[in-house]
Amino acid sequence: MKKAIILLSGGLDSATVLSIAKSKNHECYAMSFNYGQRHTIELERAKKLAKEAGVKEHLIIDINLGIIGGSALTTNIEVPKHNSVDEINRDIPITYVPGRNTIFLSFALSYAEVIEAQLIYIGVNALDYSGYPDCRPNYIKAYELMANEGTKLGLSGKKIKIETPLMFMTKGEIIKQGLALKTDYSSTITCYDPIGELSCGKCDSCLLRLKGFKEAGVKDPIKYATEVE
Amino acid sequence: MKKAIILLSGGLDSATVLSIAKSKNHECYAMSFNYGQRHTIELERAKKLAKEAGVKEHLIIDINLGIIGGSALTTNIEVPKHNSVDEINRDIPITYVPGRNTIFLSFALSYAEVIEAQLIYIGVNALDYSGYPDCRPNYIKAYELMANEGTKLGLSGKKIKIETPLMFMTKGEIIKQGLALKTDYSSTITCYDPIGELSCGKCDSCLLRLKGFKEAGVKDPIKYATEVE
Repeated sequence: MKKAIILLSGGLDSATVLSIAKSKNHECYAMSFNYGQRHTIELERAKKLAKEAGVKEHLIIDINLGIIGGSALTTNIEVPKHNSVDEINRDIPITYVPGRNTIFLSFALSYAEVIEAQLIYIGVNALDYSGYPDCRPNYIKAYELMANEGTKLGLSGKKIKIETPLMFMTKGEIIKQGLALKTDYSSTITCYDPIGELSCGKCDSCLLRLKGFKEAGVKDPIKYATEVE
Repeated sequence: MKKAIILLSGGLDSATVLSIAKSKNHECYAMSFNYGQRHTIELERAKKLAKEAGVKEHLIIDINLGIIGGSALTTNIEVPKHNSVDEINRDIPITYVPGRNTIFLSFALSYAEVIEAQLIYIGVNALDYSGYPDCRPNYIKAYELMANEGTKLGLSGKKIKIETPLMFMTKGEIIKQGLALKTDYSSTITCYDPIGELSCGKCDSCLLRLKGFKEAGVKDPIKYATEVE
C-alpha cells in the first residue's frame, strides 16, 4: 500500500482527487489550509470529506497569506460576478492567489519527507484554469524536479511524484468520474463568495461548476442563492 | 533600483546576505518566519537587523511546522551537542527541518509575485551544510526553474532569480565579507538551543560559527554559556 498525500480544499475538484487516490488503494493522508480565505466553510467540508473517506490523518495548516496580499480571495478586493461562463475573463483573474499552489505543495512536500510518502495529489486543471500559471503541466513537472532535488527522499532514489489526475479533464468529465467513484458532492463547496451555506452562483467558480454538472447531465446537489431568489 | 526579498532568520548567514543585498543598492524587503522553532529570540534579532538595514518592509509569517514534525528544531527531540566541529555528524542531522527552505522560498515567491521583485536572496551554503538536500546548488537551480514556471512574473519574461551569495564560501569567508560590509554580528544569533540570551556553544551551529570567527581572525561579539562556565 503506497502512501499518498492529498491536498484537500473541500471543493469539487479535490474531493474527486481524494476519491481517485482511494480507488487506487493508497493509504491516504489529507492536508488542508486555513490561509486567510474569505470563508472557512470549505475547511469544515474538507474535514467531513476526509472523515467520510477514512483518511489515515488530516492535517490543517494555519498560514496567513493575507499578510502578503495580492488576491481577492485573501483580501477585501471584491470577487468578480458574472451571469454566464462566457463572461469570465480569460486573463489571470483577481481571485488568483500568488504562489498559492507552490506554498501548498511545499507543505505537502515537508509532510511527504516526514511520513515518507512518494505521492502527492493535487486537483489542478489546465482547461478551466488556463489563466493560472501554477495549474500548468510545465509547472507541475518543474515542481516535481525541484521536490526530488530538495528532499532526502528524492535524493535517496525514492522519487516523489506530483499526481494531477484532473489536469486535462473538463469539469463535466471530472464530475462523471467522481460520481462513478461515489464522491459525495453534497459535502463540497466551490463558491468564492458564499452567502452563509448558499453558494453565490455568479462567481467564476460557481459558474464553472454549474456548467460541469450540466455537461455531466446531473443536478448539482448543493444549494445556490440564485435558485432561492 | 531593483527590488530584492531577503530571507532573514536573525542568524549570521542571513545577516551577511542582507548586507550583500544592500551593498548592491537593491530596494530590500525582508521576510522572516515564526515556524514553531524552539526559541523566538532569532525573530527579535531579525527585526533588529531589518531595522538597522532600513528595509522597505519586513514581513513575519506565522506557520506551524511543528504540526508536521520530523526535526529536533520544531519538536522536543534533543538537539545534539559536541565538543568540537570534528564530532559533527556528516549525515543529514536531526536538526534538518524537512522541506523548510522550500516552504520559506515559496512564501518569498508569493511575496515576489505581489510586489514584482525579481530577486530572492537566501543564505544557503553547500560547504557547511553539505548534509542538507535543500542547501545544494542543484536544488536552487531547480527551484528557480519552478519559480519561473509557476508565476505570472516569470511567465511574462521578468525572470526571477534565487540569489545565493554564500553558496561556496567558508564560514570564515562569510564573516570576513560581512565585516567588510559592516554587518552587526552582535545582533545575530546562531544557536539551535540558547540558554536565555546565551548561545550554548556546543550545538553544530555554534561550533561552526565559532570556527568561522577563528578562521576570520576576529572575536565573536556574542556571549556563550561555555565562556561563563
